[in-house]
This record gives sequence, C-alpha cells and structure tokens, in this order.
Amino acid sequence: MHAPVEFADLAADVVARIKSRAPRVHCITNYVAQNYTANVLLSAGAIPSMTISPGEIAAFVASADALLVNLGTFDAERRAAVDAALDAAEQGRKPWVLDPVFIERSPARAEFARKLVIRRPTVMRLNQREFAALTGNTTEKPQDFAQAHEIVVAVTGGHDMVTDGRRSVTVSNGDPLMSVVTAMGCAGSALVAAALAVEADPWLATNAALIALGVAGEVAAKSAPAPGRFASWIIDALYTLDRATLRERTKVS
Amino acid sequence: MHAPVEFADLAADVVARIKSRAPRVHCITNYVAQNYTANVLLSAGAIPSMTISPGEIAAFVASADALLVNLGTFDAERRAAVDAALDAAEQGRKPWVLDPVFIERSPARAEFARKLVIRRPTVMRLNQREFAALTGNTTEKPQDFAQAHEIVVAVTGGHDMVTDGRRSVTVSNGDPLMSVVTAMGCAGSALVAAALAVEADPWLATNAALIALGVAGEVAAKSAPAPGRFASWIIDALYTLDRATLRERTKVS
Amino acid sequence: MHAPVEFADLAADVVARIKSRAPRVHCITNYVAQNYTANVLLSAGAIPSMTISPGEIAAFVASADALLVNLGTFDAERRAAVDAALDAAEQGRKPWVLDPVFIERSPARAEFARKLVIRRPTVMRLNQREFAALTGNTTEKPQDFAQAHEIVVAVTGGHDMVTDGRRSVTVSNGDPLMSVVTAMGCAGSALVAAALAVEADPWLATNAALIALGVAGEVAAKSAPAPGRFASWIIDALYTLDRATLRERTKVS
Repeated sequence: MHAPVEFADLAADVVARIKSRAPRVHCITNYVAQNYTANVLLSAGAIPSMTISPGEIAAFVASADALLVNLGTFDAERRAAVDAALDAAEQGRKPWVLDPVFIERSPARAEFARKLVIRRPTVMRLNQREFAALTGNTTEKPQDFAQAHEIVVAVTGGHDMVTDGRRSVTVSNGDPLMSVVTAMGCAGSALVAAALAVEADPWLATNAALIALGVAGEVAAKSAPAPGRFASWIIDALYTLDRATLRERTKVS
Repeated sequence: MHAPVEFADLAADVVARIKSRAPRVHCITNYVAQNYTANVLLSAGAIPSMTISPGEIAAFVASADALLVNLGTFDAERRAAVDAALDAAEQGRKPWVLDPVFIERSPARAEFARKLVIRRPTVMRLNQREFAALTGNTTEKPQDFAQAHEIVVAVTGGHDMVTDGRRSVTVSNGDPLMSVVTAMGCAGSALVAAALAVEADPWLATNAALIALGVAGEVAAKSAPAPGRFASWIIDALYTLDRATLRERTKVS
Repeated sequence: MHAPVEFADLAADVVARIKSRAPRVHCITNYVAQNYTANVLLSAGAIPSMTISPGEIAAFVASADALLVNLGTFDAERRAAVDAALDAAEQGRKPWVLDPVFIERSPARAEFARKLVIRRPTVMRLNQREFAALTGNTTEKPQDFAQAHEIVVAVTGGHDMVTDGRRSVTVSNGDPLMSVVTAMGCAGSALVAAALAVEADPWLATNAALIALGVAGEVAAKSAPAPGRFASWIIDALYTLDRATLRERTKVS
C-alpha cells in the first residue's frame, strides 16, 4: 500500500507544512505535561495554548486549528473545560485528538474516556494498557474499534500501530529513552494534533507525526544517552529534522 | 541621554544586586511557565514563590520584595488570587509587574487586564499583539499609554521598547531562539520583578532585566543552536553573566 | 554503627531494587515541581502518578506502592486530596512522605502541616527553616521530634540529618548547585518515597535515597557547572548511578 519512502516523504511534508503554516494547537493537558508539550510544539513550528478557564476556552478553541484533549491530572474543572472545548471544536469543525492517559488506574477516568469516544475524536492515541482498560476487553482489535467508532486509533509503545479500520500500519521508529521522559506520549499526541491541522487525512497525519517524533528520538539518542539530556535533544532533533534523515530512518510496515 | 555602556553597567549593577540581596519574588503565573520561571529566578539569585492559595497568598506577598502577575492559564481561582495579592502589594508598597499573556485570543482576559492596569502596575510587559488588544487601538503609542497610566511599559519582541512616557529606549539584545522556548517572556517578566526589588527607578530596572536576559540569550545561542538545549544554556548564561560580557554586547538606542 | 561503605552498599541496593521493581509512587505535589519530580522518579526506575482529582485519587493511591505529600502551591483542592489520599494510604498500609514546603512563609500552611504530622508520615523531609516553623521552637531537636511522633525526620541542607529518634546520621553528599534548581528538594522527597516502597526500614530507606541523590549531584556537577544543564545532568547521573561510584563518594557520619 505504502512503501517506507512514501511515509518518509509524507512525514517530511507534514513537518514542513507545520513549520510554514504555524498552526495553533489548543491543549487541554495535565500539569505535568504542559511545559514539555508546549516546547515540543514550538520546536515543530506550531503555536501552543493551554488555558482551561471556562470563560475563555471556547474563544481559544475557536481561533485554534486543532485541539488536544489529554486526561492526565483529570479534575472537575478540566472535565467542564473539555465539554466547552468540544462544543467549540464541533462548531468550528476542528480536528481533535483524545489521549486517555492512565485510565487503567482509575475507573472514573476510563468511564469519562468512553463518553468522549462517542463524541468522535479525529484520532485517539493511547498505549496497550489504556486500550485494554477502555474496551474492557483484551481481545478487541484496534482495527475493529476504529471502524466501529469511525476514528483513527494509534496504539503506541515499542511499535506504534495506526489504524482507521481500513488502513493499518506499524511505525517502528523511536528509542527506549522516550519512555523514561515524562510527558513524551502527551507531547506526541500534541504533535498529532498539529499534523491534523495541516493534513486532511487523519490517518496520514497520525503516521507523519509519530514517524517524526520517533525519528527525532533516534537522532537524539545518538548524542544524549540518558533521559535528562535526551529530553532536550529530542526537541532539538525535531527542530532540525530534515527529509534526508526521515528517508534514512523511517520504519513502517 | 544614556550611552550603551551606561546601560551595560546598569544591567551589571542590577544583576549583582539581585545576586547579593536575593530578593523574594512572588509569582502568580501560568502552569506552563512556573517551573521555568522559578529556575530563571534562582539562576539570577532571586527566591521564587508561586502559591495562589487564597488562605496564604497575602502572607506570601507581604513577605516578598516584588510581585509578578501573569495572566496565562487564567481562571477564577487565579483572578481571586490576583485581587488578594494586589491588596497586599499595595499595603506593603511592593513593586509589581503585569504580563497580560495572550489577551489577543480572549476578550474576557483582555477586559481583566484593563482592570488591572487601573491598579497601576509598576511595569507592564507585553508583546505588540497584546498591546494592540489591550488598547483596542493599533495607533496608540506605548509612550502615551505609559504617560496616561503613570506606569512603565515594555513592548517586547525582536526589539524591546521600554518607556515611562518621558524616557524611551529600544533594547535590541536577544536571539530568535528565545521565541521558540515556552515561558521565556514570562520568565523575562519575572526577572523584571526581581530587578524592581533592587532598583528604585522602575524604568532603569526594566531595561536592566531585559538587557540581562537578552545578552544571556545571545551567549547561550553561541553554544546551543536549537531550542531544547538553548532553554538550559540561557539559564546558565544568566547564572554566569558578567560585566565584561554586558559591556561587549548591550545594544540600546 | 554503620560504616560509610555499608551505607554506600545500602544505597546501591535500594537503587537496584527501585530499578528492578519499578514501584509506583503517587505524588501530591506542587505545580512547579511536578514535571521535574516525575522525571527524577522515572530516571530512578519508579513510576510516577500525580492526579489530585477527588474522584480518583483513592484509586491511584490504592494501586501505588508509596505516597508523597508535598505542601507547595497548597490550596483547598489539594487539602481535600491529601485527606482522601491519606485515608487510602492508611487502609492499604502504604508508606508516605511529608514535605512541608515553605511553611515558614505561611502560618496556615504550617498549621496544616502540624495536623498531618499527627497522621504519622513514615518520613518527614524538610529544611531547617521549615523545621523551626513547624515546631515553633528553635531549640527542639529533630531526634526528640522523631521520637515523640514515631516518624523518621530528615532535615536537609548542606548536610542532611536523618533520625528516627534512636538512630541518627548526617549525610554530607550533594553539591551547592542543587539549591539553584527548583524542585530539587521536592524530587528528593519523591525519591525517598520510592525507596520506602522497596526498603522496609524507613530510616535506612531515607538515607539511601538522600545518598543516591547527593552522589548524583556530585557526579553531575563535574560535567555541568551551572544550574540549567545541571538540572538535566543530575537526572542522567541518577539514571546511570552504580555501586562503585556510591562506594567512592558516600559521606555519612
């Protein structure tokens, strides 16, 4: 269906479009992840905003190009913000990404995530444990879930499985250090949102963002062998990511 | 009026006074910026505190030497905190800085900022878009606004314009990477607050802080060519900033 | 009682156990410290979580191995979260660490800290000013306080004094740069919580964590001479900390 070089070029195109168009990405995300997420978006060329204030979130989403809804450090204020933000996103037909962080640790959060899936996120990104908690069923396949809910599902980990029900690929870029830096997954979801702002096919956009972040991780790990420095270097690798590097490293099957 | 070397020495003096006196700076700032702002203040030699809890903010401000009011991730709790903090600042005659982040994206926030201007911040630091949103008038000059409200206004960007209505200069230090790191402007406003704690003339204090941060940015950019590492290196450049470097690099006109 | 080499081996054992068992540490901590604390825990091999949402904090604590209660950016929501978390910790017999940040600046916060001491934290870590504010008595000795309340007390600073009333030692590892990075003390308390999850003797666990962090600080300072880079390098030093380095550097008397 797609050769790795096509995905590499797709990722390079999306990265270039984010840089040239500077899309605004509004992020409802947890306090732990806010600063790192903002820096990842800025390094990619996007403009982050983060307010959850009820009196202004609709205005922020209305003037944004994409929305991220991350459920980490989930509280009443944030739930209200999510509702208002999704109303504004639906009205403005903005793409949005759902990242149901840590729902395997909290039944209340998993229940809220299920309600959000009904509102049809453009993309849902989560790990295997979170996917199992969401479906309550360890045998359900991401493909079937994606098809049933008409969304793109990305189950990330050592390998990232990206599916819209019809099309499915596995992205195998990245480095183990990425799991030793907090908010890396959250920042990845924010990058998916930025990609959705510049690529109309959400399955392609998701692949492009995950490839870009994974390749940046590989480049960073060469110079920064431990998580403290790695957290900075991956931002720098994303800032300087070019087509040649993407062509050399993209691993999609 | 002032030659660059005078400004360089001013900046060096203010930097040295912050280091020796270790002023306490209470910051009401957004979640995205808190950690970075605290580290910038610590590297300069100041003591940051950040609570917005209604039961204790007055006590924190009363025992601080300066206050920062930043309107990012603005919510009801923070608005109440601002009121209590400004009461305490007025009572204790503490200098304070207003940083009306992103008011061009939110009419409610712009309205709140206008009310805060009436309470006479010692210094207001903002960018050109925010200034236009505040005044609702793209032709109003910062000089006139500063004079009318009897405050110092710093409109920052590629060049920083600093005016108290009578005296106006342009500080041209800095590096483009500073705009690719989140919270850099917020941290700059916090540094202005620290300068106000050790320099009685708020116009001089503002210039000193913006020169110091801008020169630190130039020094950092020499060693750190991308935003991830740059974010750390500018903190280090501020920590080691000396008079010779300031004299060599200060650009004021 | 214990020779430095015994403490070095203790620290190495605890560090190895955290890496192999990956204990879950739930942290109620201030916004300034959340990201850095999470990265310090991840680099040591622990799994951080940070929610304070009333609807789910009990579930998070019930599935955690240790709990941190840090009083920075203290507010009503956080006080309620602390109560719910301590109920869950008591029911599950989970060890917990109290870090009463900045109580010398806020009488309300000091009062709340005193109430928490009655609930018997496994360990209380604080600095000298905070200890004086807590006891309201500059002559009370940590040993007596520890014995009276049947807790471990660690008064940290240039030297860390660790006592359970019967056993007392001074850990003299660390580097002055540690006090120029925000959240370093908070992260240290989180590391104590991780150690409590893998070492049943809380006095030994506290010593092990403080030695490990202090030695990591010494190693980091050799390569990173200023606070911006140091903040990353200490995470890396913790990630790669080995028994030989601990044996070479541990200073306990």
